Amino acid sequence: MKSLPNSVEKLIEHFSKLPGVGPKSASRMAFYLLTASEDRANSFAEAITEMKHSVQFCRVCHNISEEPECLICSNDTRDKHQIMVVEDVLDLLAFEKTSEYKGAYHVLGGVISPVNGIGPEDINLASLKSRLNKLEGEVELILATNPNMEGEATAMYIKEEVADSENIKLTRIARGVPSGADLDYADKTTLSRALSGRTNL
Amino acid sequence: MKSLPNSVEKLIEHFSKLPGVGPKSASRMAFYLLTASEDRANSFAEAITEMKHSVQFCRVCHNISEEPECLICSNDTRDKHQIMVVEDVLDLLAFEKTSEYKGAYHVLGGVISPVNGIGPEDINLASLKSRLNKLEGEVELILATNPNMEGEATAMYIKEEVADSENIKLTRIARGVPSGADLDYADKTTLSRALSGRTNL
Repeated sequence: MKSLPNSVEKLIEHFSKLPGVGPKSASRMAFYLLTASEDRANSFAEAITEMKHSVQFCRVCHNISEEPECLICSNDTRDKHQIMVVEDVLDLLAFEKTSEYKGAYHVLGGVISPVNGIGPEDINLASLKSRLNKLEGEVELILATNPNMEGEATAMYIKEEVADSENIKLTRIARGVPSGADLDYADKTTLSRALSGRTNL
Repeated sequence: MKSLPNSVEKLIEHFSKLPGVGPKSASRMAFYLLTASEDRANSFAEAITEMKHSVQFCRVCHNISEEPECLICSNDTRDKHQIMVVEDVLDLLAFEKTSEYKGAYHVLGGVISPVNGIGPEDINLASLKSRLNKLEGEVELILATNPNMEGEATAMYIKEEVADSENIKLTRIARGVPSGADLDYADKTTLSRALSGRTNL
């Protein structure tokens, strides 16, 4: 027998489509809002529509932004001749949190994945190419796609694409054992990468 | 440096207030909606306000409902002389999923918890009492509050409250080892309850 009002079921369905949310946590979230104040629930709903209205993607690097150009691209203190290529905005934010990187970004919005039918033309590669063409002088392109099969394949694709450009210095973020890790928990690939990539002290 | 548009930060904050959602998963949820279609995001927002508008609490048992009386209380095939007392609607739904229980419910909307300043008058106990007073004939009151300290205390409180009523048969859901459990992982209290509550075969 159906025991939930339609409107509650509908909201649970919406919540369960979010990444990492199963049916049980989706119910908890919906019930939380059910017992929350009218104000809180309404401002939650408004926050969703408000975000969709006000956020666009930067015309230069495809980062999210409330202006045509994002806060990083429009910041004169950032080095526009150093471009870090990341898969999505969350990766960009992760690097921003380190406060170490002072260059610019290029957000691909995905990775090349033949299995999922995603080709080079489906991610922001054309705009990367035209951006590189417009830049004068030496440019460092830091490939920071994820260290998995698709991320590596995408990095390799970009490497081939820019192979002829003499002014582009191509780098890849380091792979090795993560800080604070227990070596006996690290997988084989990580350990062999850490070994082959060892540096002089 | 601030790297997120205000509207995105605001939505992340809303998501992170939901039960079981940390700042990292809140960001993922917000970004999922950011890249989702306008339609999907808007219907998510509408689902929240729609639910708050259409859902009320059943005047008999405090279950959620789109009518003054919930689907269970208005269902004539359910035994109104068997009332299961649960802490919240999620517990009610958990029992409904078993499809075994054919009686009615009473949702307390909390438990007595002196530590959190919640007394008997703060949960739906007065309405339970007046509901019991109106019922004629034998009534079974099944106490299904959670098997923890506060749930037990609330059950004990209800037991004392109805001690004088001769027409009320009071029961408590069984405690023991959960189905599919590994006995060597079960805690001491659960095992001793399973032992003392053993049944004849």
